[in-house]
Amino acid sequence: MRFFSDNAAKVHPKVMEAIAAADRVDTAYDGDALSRQLDGAFSELFGTEVRAFWVTTGTAANCLALAGLCPPYRGILCHKDAHIEVDEAGAPGFFTGGAKLILLDGDGAKVAVETAAAACDLIRKDVHQVQPAALSITNATEYGLVYRAAEVATLGEFARERGLAFHVDGARIANAVVSSGEALADLTWRAGVDAMSFGFVKNGGMNAEALILFRTELADEIAVRRKRAGHLLSKGRFLAAQILAMLDGDLWLDNARAANAAAHTLASAVPQRLVHPVEANELFIRVSAVEVEALRSQGFDFYDWGPGEIRFVTSWDSQGEGLERLAAALAAL
Amino acid sequence: MRFFSDNAAKVHPKVMEAIAAADRVDTAYDGDALSRQLDGAFSELFGTEVRAFWVTTGTAANCLALAGLCPPYRGILCHKDAHIEVDEAGAPGFFTGGAKLILLDGDGAKVAVETAAAACDLIRKDVHQVQPAALSITNATEYGLVYRAAEVATLGEFARERGLAFHVDGARIANAVVSSGEALADLTWRAGVDAMSFGFVKNGGMNAEALILFRTELADEIAVRRKRAGHLLSKGRFLAAQILAMLDGDLWLDNARAANAAAHTLASAVPQRLVHPVEANELFIRVSAVEVEALRSQGFDFYDWGPGEIRFVTSWDSQGEGLERLAAALAAL
Amino acid sequence: MRFFSDNAAKVHPKVMEAIAAADRVDTAYDGDALSRQLDGAFSELFGTEVRAFWVTTGTAANCLALAGLCPPYRGILCHKDAHIEVDEAGAPGFFTGGAKLILLDGDGAKVAVETAAAACDLIRKDVHQVQPAALSITNATEYGLVYRAAEVATLGEFARERGLAFHVDGARIANAVVSSGEALADLTWRAGVDAMSFGFVKNGGMNAEALILFRTELADEIAVRRKRAGHLLSKGRFLAAQILAMLDGDLWLDNARAANAAAHTLASAVPQRLVHPVEANELFIRVSAVEVEALRSQGFDFYDWGPGEIRFVTSWDSQGEGLERLAAALAAL
Amino acid sequence: MRFFSDNAAKVHPKVMEAIAAADRVDTAYDGDALSRQLDGAFSELFGTEVRAFWVTTGTAANCLALAGLCPPYRGILCHKDAHIEVDEAGAPGFFTGGAKLILLDGDGAKVAVETAAAACDLIRKDVHQVQPAALSITNATEYGLVYRAAEVATLGEFARERGLAFHVDGARIANAVVSSGEALADLTWRAGVDAMSFGFVKNGGMNAEALILFRTELADEIAVRRKRAGHLLSKGRFLAAQILAMLDGDLWLDNARAANAAAHTLASAVPQRLVHPVEANELFIRVSAVEVEALRSQGFDFYDWGPGEIRFVTSWDSQGEGLERLAAALAAL
Repeated sequence: MRFFSDNAAKVHPKVMEAIAAADRVDTAYDGDALSRQLDGAFSELFGTEVRAFWVTTGTAANCLALAGLCPPYRGILCHKDAHIEVDEAGAPGFFTGGAKLILLDGDGAKVAVETAAAACDLIRKDVHQVQPAALSITNATEYGLVYRAAEVATLGEFARERGLAFHVDGARIANAVVSSGEALADLTWRAGVDAMSFGFVKNGGMNAEALILFRTELADEIAVRRKRAGHLLSKGRFLAAQILAMLDGDLWLDNARAANAAAHTLASAVPQRLVHPVEANELFIRVSAVEVEALRSQGFDFYDWGPGEIRFVTSWDSQGEGLERLAAALAAL
Repeated sequence: MRFFSDNAAKVHPKVMEAIAAADRVDTAYDGDALSRQLDGAFSELFGTEVRAFWVTTGTAANCLALAGLCPPYRGILCHKDAHIEVDEAGAPGFFTGGAKLILLDGDGAKVAVETAAAACDLIRKDVHQVQPAALSITNATEYGLVYRAAEVATLGEFARERGLAFHVDGARIANAVVSSGEALADLTWRAGVDAMSFGFVKNGGMNAEALILFRTELADEIAVRRKRAGHLLSKGRFLAAQILAMLDGDLWLDNARAANAAAHTLASAVPQRLVHPVEANELFIRVSAVEVEALRSQGFDFYDWGPGEIRFVTSWDSQGEGLERLAAALAAL
Repeated sequence: MRFFSDNAAKVHPKVMEAIAAADRVDTAYDGDALSRQLDGAFSELFGTEVRAFWVTTGTAANCLALAGLCPPYRGILCHKDAHIEVDEAGAPGFFTGGAKLILLDGDGAKVAVETAAAACDLIRKDVHQVQPAALSITNATEYGLVYRAAEVATLGEFARERGLAFHVDGARIANAVVSSGEALADLTWRAGVDAMSFGFVKNGGMNAEALILFRTELADEIAVRRKRAGHLLSKGRFLAAQILAMLDGDLWLDNARAANAAAHTLASAVPQRLVHPVEANELFIRVSAVEVEALRSQGFDFYDWGPGEIRFVTSWDSQGEGLERLAAALAAL
Repeated sequence: MRFFSDNAAKVHPKVMEAIAAADRVDTAYDGDALSRQLDGAFSELFGTEVRAFWVTTGTAANCLALAGLCPPYRGILCHKDAHIEVDEAGAPGFFTGGAKLILLDGDGAKVAVETAAAACDLIRKDVHQVQPAALSITNATEYGLVYRAAEVATLGEFARERGLAFHVDGARIANAVVSSGEALADLTWRAGVDAMSFGFVKNGGMNAEALILFRTELADEIAVRRKRAGHLLSKGRFLAAQILAMLDGDLWLDNARAANAAAHTLASAVPQRLVHPVEANELFIRVSAVEVEALRSQGFDFYDWGPGEIRFVTSWDSQGEGLERLAAALAAL
């Protein structure tokens, strides 16, 4: 059974149905009836006016947003283990035209406001050093930790004071909402977030993510940047359909709830081996080489996270016998 | 009935079926079983070894290829009406890092070798003027004309002599192959083409296009550029499935044949009004404002191409009663 | 005698003296006593508050300004013979991050407002086509013609109406001021110009040009962009010294007056062969190949501008016997 | 007396004389008689064929070289305190089109081969992580330490094995040569260096640095990139003249010898307070706030390097009474 990542999980049946149902002739690009519903659907979801854009990858959603928030000659504060730093092939540099990522430390890939402030204070205020223009965090983080609304608000306040735009990589925002039990609005715009990626692909979608702008005045620029980056698909209705299906009846929350529950099932089996608290759908555990081998030989698929450490990621469909077998195998280590 | 563009047509049922059939867990990105078939499938199709990459738009396919063929400080010769010049929001500048499009004239958006040569000859060979590094043509052109294999070969020979890379925008390459009756290989690599976009979305696909490299040594760079541009989807199997379905049993040719036939049906109804010969699936006709109004009032959807001129584009599903009604309406003008 | 270009002329003795006098230890970059005088000196010269930056080339001055005025995803209207298009190696694309030059026709490299308006009107207002963000003109033009204040004001009004920034390439602004007899302010900011390059090197300087911002709120950004492009010299006092020397006692106008006068002397010798009216310090004349040969054999150095056409450019030190000999030789053709 | 930096020191009289002597009409750009001597002069100096380009700043020299050595989608290994990382305003990102600096630790801003190797080994060999393409070191380092020839050769061997280009920031290469007593060739191309900046401005020049290519096949590209970045001055003879004057009679070595000697004079006065060994012309010492105040009150100008630490930089003209007074003041701390 596959616990390598949530990024290749099956597509949820309701998403598949929505795609099939979208197969009618309509206006091209994002002028179709479905795409035109996105602004409204997300504005309702967030409880404030937003502008929403479909794209096909989290990298595109993150980096288009960052390009709108940070000019080429400035920098973006982020964790040194942030996806935009370690797993997007330098995409922030490409989309922004050469802006610099200013890297911060922090346990579990979380950014503390003190760390961000200290990094800013070290930068001389002259033209020789790159001045930050934005702060980016990932919620849930790359290590499966979750920022609570109060934490996001503290960072948002810091960003406001320093004149920084505030971006959230929300590839797993659904898992964060479910984990925190807090309102989506409190985790985002009420906490001062300006723009975010809103992940669906890891959560049961096929190939549609959303870029959400709380600073709606950026919408025209982002629309052009999306086209210019080759991310304006002509049959956009098939992307919009996926997103609307995920929002319908809170499927996005149900799926995240299932994924988080599966991670907790596994965590309960090996509480003493956890590298990080399990707050979302990721699980990092300490193992010996022999144990890795034993798990693999039982047919489990996971990620070697470095010497003596492995990663499991659960997804909306991680349940039933496969999950129980893994929990048992972990407990038996 | 919609004749506005082929870019929003319905998805062919076989493509839809292939997408549904691809809904199983597999490795992420392009490591899955379907994506790994692309190199082989296209190599067989072309009769030579190629490297093939799925992307979701023609803009991405074209501009990733151009970024691999032209350094930031040089230029790309293309027609002044080329899609990369007029309809991709400056994407070539973004992907290449600022390379210049050097614009050429020519009837029906076709580039003649003499025109390209004259443009090159006008450029001083010094560091002050941008030196061309590549030639790009579109086949079928933006006006629905088709380069024959001999024409492509002449341009390829010119490119080779001048040290230029040779790119083809093949958004409608299927229509060109069907129209010319010539071999795909003769229209591309045997004529000296280095890289091309191979369109499927306008021809019955949902959101998968292919970038084909005949210069296979560029593959590693293009793979990185694709990721860096946010175009490496995590569930790539759904893109590969579409392409494989289109290639299977020559569906791509059948669909193009249908589209071209529909265009000829329309052309036959108004032979004296054609602005350009109808060689593929596009039809430009001269009309008065009153006639435009009359056609619109009958429910036909098309593109105002400028004063006194309108464009119809047919697609794989342009047939039956709707098509006949339009032909009749055109004949009645 | 050299009439090839004004760009390699001798340095005016007063500029040389100023450089020698600047050889004292001072703060680095642009913090020194001389550099700090530039804002004030130019504000006084223009009769309005400006921000002034030394750079070493017109290309840097133009393209840093354009980068401040036009985002990467938009375009700059300019004449197809503009220096930024034909002689800066694609620098606008590099500095702006890929913005597009939208080329305009016009006699003598002059842009007419009707032409600019027509070009704008042809651009569809959608995300597929690059929307203009700026208009750039050169005064005096690359063909030695001069925009009068009223013409600049008309273009400025057009730019304002269309929401375009307005840039002037002033490599030869001194020649334009002298030629028009109009006030510098009327030719620039009072006519709606937002930023300009102010040329000194072609007019007796060694290697200092100025970038002038009338929109002073751009100054912080331009300061960073200058550094980032490697154009913040550590001993900036030697650049500031040159510029201050050129402004002192209106040396910049005296030098331009001499250059223009020399061009008129030559023009008077061959009035019937002039390709363009001679309004500044450039002279294009029609000649046969035999005549070209004859002139060269007499030791004159000039530029072959194409079949049957040659260019002479005069500079501040084009006078005396050499000039008279050339005038005589031209008259004798 | 000024010990803030060597970057604003006086120009050496022989350089001033050479500039004055260059004031004659000649071909523009780098076609003049002086500029054309550079390749030969440096080839002789290095004892191998090189291509040499004048530019006006170290930032331009470094970043043009890096743009030639590293494509936009790859990375450059360098020390976290390297000038290209901390003091060039993100210029590497601008010139390369978004390449990433991969930061290394190391005492005194020196890169150890083990550190570089470990950083490379941490990078997964896939398209998601940025792969390094180049290694850049600074000699002498930003903390005044000097790489010996054997150390450079070890790094060069590492670079070769890993397929990395090798760049040296030689803003103070003269100080390194004098300090090490080793041959310039052994510190550069014989050790595997591909390209370097060769500093003159900090060593008695006015505004001319050199970019040296040992991989001469890059020369055409660098020539275009220089122009495109606005760094091709029209009266280049005044830059070439400076460089030739510095090379003449080994003035560059004499000046560096004087600067290094001055630093040693100061170091000898406070041996117990040195933060780093003094190997070139920089001196970092530990001081209390009261001591800082005391030094400032005596008229000494230096750089606050952080809490409890100050930096002195000596230059070619740091000698005589001012130097002795500072040495005495330091000894008296």
